[in-house]
Amino acid sequence: MLVTCGSHVALRTQHSDTLLAFGMRGDPTMYEHYWQQVGEKTTVVIRGWQHMSYFSDVSNICWFLEPELAEEIARVHRVVGNAVTEGRHIIVGTGSSQLFLAALFALSPRDGPEPVSVVSQAPFYSSYPSMTDCLKSGLYKWAGDAQSYSKEGPYIELVTSPNNPDGNVRRSVVNRSEGTLVHDLAYYWPQYTPISSPADHELMLFTVSKSTGHAGMRIGWALVKDQEVARRMIKFIELNTIGVSKDSQLRAAKVLKAVSDSSEHGGTWEGVESFFKFSYRVMAERWKLLREAVNSSRIFSLPEFPPAHCNFLNRVFEPQPAFAWLKCERDIDDCESFLRGHKILARGGKHFGVSPKYVRVSMLDRDNNFNLFVKRLSTIHL
Amino acid sequence: MLVTCGSHVALRTQHSDTLLAFGMRGDPTMYEHYWQQVGEKTTVVIRGWQHMSYFSDVSNICWFLEPELAEEIARVHRVVGNAVTEGRHIIVGTGSSQLFLAALFALSPRDGPEPVSVVSQAPFYSSYPSMTDCLKSGLYKWAGDAQSYSKEGPYIELVTSPNNPDGNVRRSVVNRSEGTLVHDLAYYWPQYTPISSPADHELMLFTVSKSTGHAGMRIGWALVKDQEVARRMIKFIELNTIGVSKDSQLRAAKVLKAVSDSSEHGGTWEGVESFFKFSYRVMAERWKLLREAVNSSRIFSLPEFPPAHCNFLNRVFEPQPAFAWLKCERDIDDCESFLRGHKILARGGKHFGVSPKYVRVSMLDRDNNFNLFVKRLSTIHL
Repeated sequence: MLVTCGSHVALRTQHSDTLLAFGMRGDPTMYEHYWQQVGEKTTVVIRGWQHMSYFSDVSNICWFLEPELAEEIARVHRVVGNAVTEGRHIIVGTGSSQLFLAALFALSPRDGPEPVSVVSQAPFYSSYPSMTDCLKSGLYKWAGDAQSYSKEGPYIELVTSPNNPDGNVRRSVVNRSEGTLVHDLAYYWPQYTPISSPADHELMLFTVSKSTGHAGMRIGWALVKDQEVARRMIKFIELNTIGVSKDSQLRAAKVLKAVSDSSEHGGTWEGVESFFKFSYRVMAERWKLLREAVNSSRIFSLPEFPPAHCNFLNRVFEPQPAFAWLKCERDIDDCESFLRGHKILARGGKHFGVSPKYVRVSMLDRDNNFNLFVKRLSTIHL
Repeated sequence: MLVTCGSHVALRTQHSDTLLAFGMRGDPTMYEHYWQQVGEKTTVVIRGWQHMSYFSDVSNICWFLEPELAEEIARVHRVVGNAVTEGRHIIVGTGSSQLFLAALFALSPRDGPEPVSVVSQAPFYSSYPSMTDCLKSGLYKWAGDAQSYSKEGPYIELVTSPNNPDGNVRRSVVNRSEGTLVHDLAYYWPQYTPISSPADHELMLFTVSKSTGHAGMRIGWALVKDQEVARRMIKFIELNTIGVSKDSQLRAAKVLKAVSDSSEHGGTWEGVESFFKFSYRVMAERWKLLREAVNSSRIFSLPEFPPAHCNFLNRVFEPQPAFAWLKCERDIDDCESFLRGHKILARGGKHFGVSPKYVRVSMLDRDNNFNLFVKRLSTIHL
């Protein structure tokens, strides 16, 4: 049976006039404010005759990767210290979604007797099951919660850390010899979680959507150790979209450069706060406001996270995730419906493979919307 | 068995220093010259804080389509008269490749007993088989040449007109009641073929790569009559890449606007030749040169096309396709190898489902490369 996928956009469309749609997609519009402060330094100018070819760099295995973007990806990881790029192939994708699909294609055994199982520990990113199963591929198949997975043979485990939706730091849980791992590190940035060490896995995924807030660019990247896996991922992107928008790659390079430049200047950068200081500060304020609202309501609860040292910010702090994983307490069994009754639209736990007592709410909306959400939440009483 | 797909990029990479790679991908760099003449009128300027959201227009069923692009797509078809847009949903894709896959997804019967057959009349676009079969989908399956297709039940027929690789005007050939059609009209523009009437099919695909030459943008669009088919195509793009680069959509809108503006001005447009007059003229010159070289060699032949009246250019002309479908005559059985021996790299007929006596050569390369190709071709003697 085909998985019916993603009714959230339709919902958002219906209700967009009523300001209900907190966190249906995690639209990172919070970051607009920072980039306005930065001003013209990240403006891109592209002329009609530029960047017309399919090809970006025929000497690179990833022939559609703009060299400027490759350089800035390596640099930002070096500056932040959140991932090892040495000895890795960098592959650009149309968002990390495309790279996730490319990874499934690349890691599936050739000519296996049946599709390889794809698992992830619940609660997992709600789009994983539908993305995996929508084409009924004979190469791979969604097999649910990694914690209850017990089949013999090859499998692919998706490790999202910090996790979407609940913000926890994750490690693989299946740990069998025939497994391969995909590390989705979209949120492994210092505004969300302490950077304890550079991630050093076989196949890691990142995206500008959640790091710099530029979701509309649709630019993600993979860091891949194995050359044959890299080659197959590139082949997938060739067959899927014949490469990735050059315009957005060039813009992403410029924005990542600004992130690195601003970080290297420490406190301020030509009068502008550094990107991660700004975004850390906004996330900290928002989590404080949200926790106050939740505590005053006595109806909801939020996960608690152990504090840890961040090598990049050189301070100890508790994770402040891009999503709030809100639980309805008492006898409220369907938190999504309950909140909808109070004009708050959030995604229920069943989308993430767990109880409907949970919902996911975006922490990255514009100030007005976030404040309205907290205000509405704090006025709910039983 | 998995189809091994697209070794052409690897070949291009290996040989890029020797100027051999004519037409491996049909890289439309010929058009750079025109856009240089146009100058700053098609320059896009995007600031760091602009277009950050995932969403473009939540009131549109295609929520990731930039309204400016939708407007310019409708306008250019109105100006050129090559497709009906009234009563159609416009869907933007990451190139028309993504829209081709979206169409297969949308047109496949739900819960069918077996994958639906996908067919196209040979010679067909060489990527169709590998794009269709690479994920071993349970929804659809490549079934080869439409002319020899005789199975009962539902099928999808791909109609590419003018055809890639051979430039012929095409109609569907299977014509059974349970078939659905995808019309790939990437080359239905007046520089390549006379525009006889506005195309008026259920599902039509276009791309800037071949119309304006901006392959690096990765922007294509579909015109779709049926709302449910449109909805499913949009769902596919959501699951595949969560929308399409906004930066490239905005740039595509600007370029298509220039095409329409220049066309409406007739002869010249602020001192610049109109886009289609330029591109028609270049294609006519190139086909003349190529036919001269082929005739002088006596080793090769080219298809002959009947002249027809073009409503847009208001003249009668013979098609002058974006690819030359070159045949090796006499006892040369493998035209691709033969040409490689003469330092010309082209794609052999077997990739397109026909005899290796044929090869496909791009007519859209930069002047220098095209001239070098014609020169090399004309010096080949047995």
